[in-house]
Amino acid sequence: MLSPDAVGEVCIVVIGIGVIGCGYWGPNLLRNFYELESCRLTWCCDARPERLRWVQGRYPTVRTTTSWEELLRAPDVQAVAIATPVSTHARLAREALRRGKDVLVEKPLTASVREAEALVALAEQERRILMVDHVFVYSGAVRAVKEVIRRGELGDLYYFDSVRVNLGLFQHDVNVLWDLAPHDLAIMDYLLELEPEAVMAVGACNVGTGIENLAYVTIRFAGHLLAHIHVNWLAPVKARRTLLCGSRKMIIYDDTEPSEKVKVYDRGITFNGDQSLIHQALIEYRTGDMYAPRIEPTEALRRVCGHFLECVEARKAPLTDGEAGLRVVRLLERAEASMRAGGVEQRLVA
Amino acid sequence: MLSPDAVGEVCIVVIGIGVIGCGYWGPNLLRNFYELESCRLTWCCDARPERLRWVQGRYPTVRTTTSWEELLRAPDVQAVAIATPVSTHARLAREALRRGKDVLVEKPLTASVREAEALVALAEQERRILMVDHVFVYSGAVRAVKEVIRRGELGDLYYFDSVRVNLGLFQHDVNVLWDLAPHDLAIMDYLLELEPEAVMAVGACNVGTGIENLAYVTIRFAGHLLAHIHVNWLAPVKARRTLLCGSRKMIIYDDTEPSEKVKVYDRGITFNGDQSLIHQALIEYRTGDMYAPRIEPTEALRRVCGHFLECVEARKAPLTDGEAGLRVVRLLERAEASMRAGGVEQRLVA
Amino acid sequence: MLSPDAVGEVCIVVIGIGVIGCGYWGPNLLRNFYELESCRLTWCCDARPERLRWVQGRYPTVRTTTSWEELLRAPDVQAVAIATPVSTHARLAREALRRGKDVLVEKPLTASVREAEALVALAEQERRILMVDHVFVYSGAVRAVKEVIRRGELGDLYYFDSVRVNLGLFQHDVNVLWDLAPHDLAIMDYLLELEPEAVMAVGACNVGTGIENLAYVTIRFAGHLLAHIHVNWLAPVKARRTLLCGSRKMIIYDDTEPSEKVKVYDRGITFNGDQSLIHQALIEYRTGDMYAPRIEPTEALRRVCGHFLECVEARKAPLTDGEAGLRVVRLLERAEASMRAGGVEQRLVA
Amino acid sequence: MLSPDAVGEVCIVVIGIGVIGCGYWGPNLLRNFYELESCRLTWCCDARPERLRWVQGRYPTVRTTTSWEELLRAPDVQAVAIATPVSTHARLAREALRRGKDVLVEKPLTASVREAEALVALAEQERRILMVDHVFVYSGAVRAVKEVIRRGELGDLYYFDSVRVNLGLFQHDVNVLWDLAPHDLAIMDYLLELEPEAVMAVGACNVGTGIENLAYVTIRFAGHLLAHIHVNWLAPVKARRTLLCGSRKMIIYDDTEPSEKVKVYDRGITFNGDQSLIHQALIEYRTGDMYAPRIEPTEALRRVCGHFLECVEARKAPLTDGEAGLRVVRLLERAEASMRAGGVEQRLVA
Repeated sequence: MLSPDAVGEVCIVVIGIGVIGCGYWGPNLLRNFYELESCRLTWCCDARPERLRWVQGRYPTVRTTTSWEELLRAPDVQAVAIATPVSTHARLAREALRRGKDVLVEKPLTASVREAEALVALAEQERRILMVDHVFVYSGAVRAVKEVIRRGELGDLYYFDSVRVNLGLFQHDVNVLWDLAPHDLAIMDYLLELEPEAVMAVGACNVGTGIENLAYVTIRFAGHLLAHIHVNWLAPVKARRTLLCGSRKMIIYDDTEPSEKVKVYDRGITFNGDQSLIHQALIEYRTGDMYAPRIEPTEALRRVCGHFLECVEARKAPLTDGEAGLRVVRLLERAEASMRAGGVEQRLVA
Repeated sequence: MLSPDAVGEVCIVVIGIGVIGCGYWGPNLLRNFYELESCRLTWCCDARPERLRWVQGRYPTVRTTTSWEELLRAPDVQAVAIATPVSTHARLAREALRRGKDVLVEKPLTASVREAEALVALAEQERRILMVDHVFVYSGAVRAVKEVIRRGELGDLYYFDSVRVNLGLFQHDVNVLWDLAPHDLAIMDYLLELEPEAVMAVGACNVGTGIENLAYVTIRFAGHLLAHIHVNWLAPVKARRTLLCGSRKMIIYDDTEPSEKVKVYDRGITFNGDQSLIHQALIEYRTGDMYAPRIEPTEALRRVCGHFLECVEARKAPLTDGEAGLRVVRLLERAEASMRAGGVEQRLVA
Repeated sequence: MLSPDAVGEVCIVVIGIGVIGCGYWGPNLLRNFYELESCRLTWCCDARPERLRWVQGRYPTVRTTTSWEELLRAPDVQAVAIATPVSTHARLAREALRRGKDVLVEKPLTASVREAEALVALAEQERRILMVDHVFVYSGAVRAVKEVIRRGELGDLYYFDSVRVNLGLFQHDVNVLWDLAPHDLAIMDYLLELEPEAVMAVGACNVGTGIENLAYVTIRFAGHLLAHIHVNWLAPVKARRTLLCGSRKMIIYDDTEPSEKVKVYDRGITFNGDQSLIHQALIEYRTGDMYAPRIEPTEALRRVCGHFLECVEARKAPLTDGEAGLRVVRLLERAEASMRAGGVEQRLVA
Repeated sequence: MLSPDAVGEVCIVVIGIGVIGCGYWGPNLLRNFYELESCRLTWCCDARPERLRWVQGRYPTVRTTTSWEELLRAPDVQAVAIATPVSTHARLAREALRRGKDVLVEKPLTASVREAEALVALAEQERRILMVDHVFVYSGAVRAVKEVIRRGELGDLYYFDSVRVNLGLFQHDVNVLWDLAPHDLAIMDYLLELEPEAVMAVGACNVGTGIENLAYVTIRFAGHLLAHIHVNWLAPVKARRTLLCGSRKMIIYDDTEPSEKVKVYDRGITFNGDQSLIHQALIEYRTGDMYAPRIEPTEALRRVCGHFLECVEARKAPLTDGEAGLRVVRLLERAEASMRAGGVEQRLVA
């Protein structure tokens, strides 16, 4: 937020921000936009009056409303951030884009591919910024992993394996796949930059809600590259651990570690010799040093909000634009279809 | 081994043991049988003379041979332990049973269901003991988990999730599924005592040997119970971690922990209310104490060898008998078939 | 803070709170008093105008001043919380008590025993509440440890060993002893409820500031009970680990653990037999289960603030009253004296 | 041990080794000397016939005796390894040296400085090898730490802090100081290569044996360098953790870690500015990468035995010679004196 003592002639662009949805994640958006210098948090909308009273207590300068239409009509709202239930993302984002607002949407972008495609098309047509909050892509740890890959340290990629489990908040509207897997899929999409060929998923509904609380997702890429994701709302302890293995090095990214979240291991095997004559002697193990790159401590969501404001100001495409959101939604939709079909592989053709 | 100073009239049964195969695991069998009181390690066979010289240096009282037929003909061999490559298990065990020997076979019991079925039938016909070395079933940690289940602490079972990864010994003859998954399947078979209904598996061959170094296996049981196993020879650090979740409690069994390998968590959720009206308020989280039962420190293989000798002496069926070995081989064969078919589910019908 | 929609005749006592000092810890006090229902955060004082601007942005309803005298004169301040540098605690608390305010002071209570004694006497004379913010005493973890001790599970106490190290904020005004050890001494005071007999300390000034960044403190109690504290601003990773060992059980309290901060081990040795004949056979080891009691997740400082308000309302002595603060300051002063004398033991006589 | 199939004219020196003492540590010496190529394990002596029977069962080619004099008279013993209670080290080593044997003695070298000085003088006079088994000095981890120091990565040394605790074997003849601290003192002696100036120690006898089960030792060096050691037989879990902090980097060596035992942190603070004006702004924190050097996996005792044989053959002084043993015994004796005097500092003058 612009410091209140910036008086006199200050010629900077101050973007008016409206936040729609103030449940679990919305307060984090409010806090970050409130503290950023290049914008002014002007409006907040939520259907529940008690949430708006909470906002008023915390941020007395912010106007509140139970009507998203009022927020979208407000002249001091140039950009909106949407943190409502997934099923409402498409409609709210569409209305905002139509009214000429730039839009930041919580993950997943929408509840279906059709909706996501329509949003991407609309944003392009309206020449508005459409960004999805794939928050882990902006974390210091994932950025450090990306740097290791960019430097070519991993060699050929072998597999991506991610586990995200805890005794989590059961959602009513979405299953664990749509709740947790967007994180892993967004990380995978950002790190690998590859088109998946097929996806399979199985899940379990253990507690009688008919909503999956556990899912395993397998994603095939060209060659032998495989990705696998385990998401689970019903585990006794929290685990958030990604293995990324290449021909030259291997990475463990453990988000629950207080420090050293990313470890890069100079380990692997070398297979020397022709394939008809496979003898153990031809396999050589390599065990070298490990290093843990320094992780930039800035809060990931702070970077999300800052990047959104930069894109709004400079009219440039965000790192996690509508297309990125669409790619993740496509994987989720196909994984859901596989899960419904008992694990039958679903092709992802361009 | 019988202590050499047991002189005079000592009327005990001393079982003569022959060990076939002295590669990676054989020396552990030699050491344990050598140190046990109720048997005498009499013979060791290996095709490689340098391995036999090593045995002679360590255990000068043990006779050695490169011919398993010579070992099986020896009058001071009542029982044999087979620790050779998997492809040879069936033939060696068959020859031993036919010659009236009791047999302990390394996991997996055989390389195919057909072979395992034949062995089980032969052992029954010859009235010989047939035991498979599902070594983890005899570990203090898995026994402690079994006790928790036996006492009914877990409630209804929700899922079994096992990860067994490390920078492992690449095998030439079998893939990672046949090498590592027998451990998890044997543990699952022992703990759950349930008939699986179907199995799916995917794998990856990353290093150009045409042998899978990574596999994910999913097993369905009646109801919503799901088991999932991740085995991997190409991970930077060792992990051996099993989650076992029930409606009342949850267990983490981490075999890499120096102590507290088994942790029992009084955690979970309670779903109150009818299924048509799913509101978050109806889900209650429960977080209570955790406890780590004391783990009996005896080496698992020591118990395997001791149990085998007891069964030989008392002519009783082992805990991990031929049937247990067959059940694991059946899962492996079906998982392999699924992997070959690109992950298509394979039914396991009685 | 009282919810703004509590309208009409609501007959509750609402305590007006003033916070003096808004540096490192002050904002945490502001946030907690702001959110608590039974008080109203009315004033905040800090010598630095930029800190007050920050307060105005966050809490627009709070009045700010650079003059603590103005704050103490304000009619809507019944109680004050002091979070200024240690050297100023005594004077500010004295002025507040003299003006009839109840007072919560950051740890350590004062910079000297003489000052602490004077404050305790003044509070008694003025019949005002004097409380010291020994924050860890109010943490769920320390309270869980206390419960284990209260139930007599530990048996006779053998030792208390505490390590509190990290790459910490170097202070200019106090050394590591006065900065970090108050936490461990307050925890020890609360858990043991015993009078120490003597204290020794050594320290090191490694970085040329003449201020100790590392200190080891040893405290003797009657019998064989020993306490030892290692505080350190210059360690590569954070460690906060306390061992508390008794004749029957042992506790590890590790505050850096995300869950299971407190572990109670049923381990120990039993010494059977007369003391003249010490043979190894007479020592028996005991290794039983471990359990980790559930930790109440409420923020410790929330409980501190709530307890202070309760004591103010009910005119009762706080758990960590002036006497508790004095006991900790006495240990610090004697430890400092020992450190200045090169580690010579200092008696603590009543 | 020389391989039995080395036939014909093989002109190598084969050193005959006798091991005195076959209790807790002796079997490890037997195993290592038995397996090394350049020596022949010829004799083993122990006062307890049952231990000798155990040796005969394991190593039938080794001759056994209950008389150390018989072992020392044997013509096929050129060198002896002594693994008896500490109180007997001096006498046995003296007798062996007098009979012209080279000698490897378990840590600590002797029970007193006087004894150690006499042994060092005798070995020099007899031109015999005298080596002490400071086994951790030969571990891959400590060698890796030494390499980091050798490369100057740490900068100026600030402190050495070592914790070695577990639920340990209570000894009858020595306290925890003489049992465990030799490891830390030997590591410190090897890594720092500095003369300590003074030592202080406190201890506790908690279990009624009159033997300390817990001790804290502080060692002062020139400048501000401080070393501190915590040894403890009565802790619920094993910890073996050494912090070594310098002006440029910091090391954590955790011997209980399965891999990455040594971590080197590029962390610290920089103090810029003159000492009269200490402002927080002048202290800069530095947080860079961490790396874990590859640790050579060879068993430390294997290297101890191999190094002893090399020194015997080449007539060169061992890395951990009698002088190193004497330096450690001197620290132990002075620490014990301090402990007896209630923690009074003891000077160590050359």
